[in-house]
Amino acid sequence: MRILVTGASGFVGRWVVMGLVTRGHDVIAVSHGNGLSLAPDSQQISWRSVDLLNQFQIDALIASERPAGLVHCAWETTPNAYWSSPENLPWVSSSLQLMESFRRYGGQRAVIAGTSAEYDWSSDQTLHEDRSATVPTTMYGISKNALRQILQHWAKSEGVSLAWGRIFCPFGPGENSTRLVPRLIQGLSSGTPLPFDSGNLIRDFLSVEDLGDAFAAVFDSDFEGTVNVASGRDTSIAELVTVIAKCMGTRQVNFGVLPDPVDQPRRLVADVTRLAETVGWTPACSIEKRISEICHPLRSHAATTAPRNR
Amino acid sequence: MRILVTGASGFVGRWVVMGLVTRGHDVIAVSHGNGLSLAPDSQQISWRSVDLLNQFQIDALIASERPAGLVHCAWETTPNAYWSSPENLPWVSSSLQLMESFRRYGGQRAVIAGTSAEYDWSSDQTLHEDRSATVPTTMYGISKNALRQILQHWAKSEGVSLAWGRIFCPFGPGENSTRLVPRLIQGLSSGTPLPFDSGNLIRDFLSVEDLGDAFAAVFDSDFEGTVNVASGRDTSIAELVTVIAKCMGTRQVNFGVLPDPVDQPRRLVADVTRLAETVGWTPACSIEKRISEICHPLRSHAATTAPRNR
Repeated sequence: MRILVTGASGFVGRWVVMGLVTRGHDVIAVSHGNGLSLAPDSQQISWRSVDLLNQFQIDALIASERPAGLVHCAWETTPNAYWSSPENLPWVSSSLQLMESFRRYGGQRAVIAGTSAEYDWSSDQTLHEDRSATVPTTMYGISKNALRQILQHWAKSEGVSLAWGRIFCPFGPGENSTRLVPRLIQGLSSGTPLPFDSGNLIRDFLSVEDLGDAFAAVFDSDFEGTVNVASGRDTSIAELVTVIAKCMGTRQVNFGVLPDPVDQPRRLVADVTRLAETVGWTPACSIEKRISEICHPLRSHAATTAPRNR
Repeated sequence: MRILVTGASGFVGRWVVMGLVTRGHDVIAVSHGNGLSLAPDSQQISWRSVDLLNQFQIDALIASERPAGLVHCAWETTPNAYWSSPENLPWVSSSLQLMESFRRYGGQRAVIAGTSAEYDWSSDQTLHEDRSATVPTTMYGISKNALRQILQHWAKSEGVSLAWGRIFCPFGPGENSTRLVPRLIQGLSSGTPLPFDSGNLIRDFLSVEDLGDAFAAVFDSDFEGTVNVASGRDTSIAELVTVIAKCMGTRQVNFGVLPDPVDQPRRLVADVTRLAETVGWTPACSIEKRISEICHPLRSHAATTAPRNR
């Protein structure tokens, strides 16, 4: 199928493109600036440079491409700032306009990137798509959750098949250097002991390569509704740090030296029953293997598939 | 204050303009087509014809007018169809773009028209802004509720003073002929007995003239958050029919002849404590008096103030 992917040069989007290409789809890859070189399958990928915050550019894009499928990953993603940025508002507008154009020109199947931030983070419970409350408290979570409410009702009444994939804690190639895993690798490379907090927070980590493959699997399934796209596995930050340290051949982490972060949820882990049983997807790879690929790119498969900016 | 009113030629918007003008404000009245002649205060009103579904027209409007205040009434309002119309989506986008432009060009105080359809209609309880659940089931209710969630969080973080006024069952001059009160007046004018259902549904009716004044009062208050803009009074449809029949000098209504409507909430009535105590507004007029003014416009005050299309 011809599938339009937005945010295609982004951290998540580039791996969604890879996942779809691997499954035999042709991809219209949309980004605001330059695209990426996604060897070895780039003959299946056509890049388009479009400003998705301009409603007329959206409409012109969809009118000319008329994609049957859509995976919408584009959003405000300025590191850290996106949580509270007013730039979340134009992305809600853009997403509504994109979906409306998509439907008007014959679009049939769409998957949209949601977020664990739609859930009530004050609970320690494993987060389930139906049973857990959606009480977002950040501008980002509120915006995504509100968009979801509108589009899920709209899609049903307009006959568009829509899946909403909630992303938890992705890591991996292409990650912004201010995010956790790159910072840890940087900090552990210095040769001096790394001061750290207790590392007691528990998160649901998933390699972005696996995440991209999972989104492609969600697209290919006929699942409609909300699905957590995650590992379902409890990993404390301390465990993650230890895995990275081991890969880098060091033990120089001093846990408990720094104060623990405040206002952070203690445990954020997805129930992945729906992803496993309804979509039929589970990660092919352990977190340890993926971390090892990042720490030693020359030894690993990642070196031959990682996208590079062109 | 200079206040921009959207949907200013609409059923609700025209009375909001009247309410603001009566309170001494200057109004930039925005409508898509021609404006209205709102005698006798039209020297305080400047009309602008703008397509609010075009993001560049919104921005140009706000950039040139730079209003300090905004009352946003414009929305998809095709009778009956608006409940499920996909046209709700572009109005969410438009409203986000409008608020963003408003803030960017120095806007300070805004009031937005919300709806009773944001509430859970399966409950018979009196609907309270905080204590009642928001579980909308219609495209219209879901869209307004989602917009509210985004804008209330955004307004707090961006320093915009925002009130969200939930409208229940307005009636009165300028009402579309397919709506309840005009249909009843038409039906009771025919001279033959009007067949009717049991009339047992209970609603919260408020004259649109009072509604416009209430919105102006909400604007002038410093209240931020959600407020029901309603009468707080239980009126069964049968009572309303009886009041109209009495005004028209007939008793020819046969209740219980037609089947009751299905899938309609039995009781929709607002808790108006917040409107009365925090905003300080209560209706100046009874429903009976307002109905009498509609049935006998030549006898009443309404004849001198009712807006006319120009």
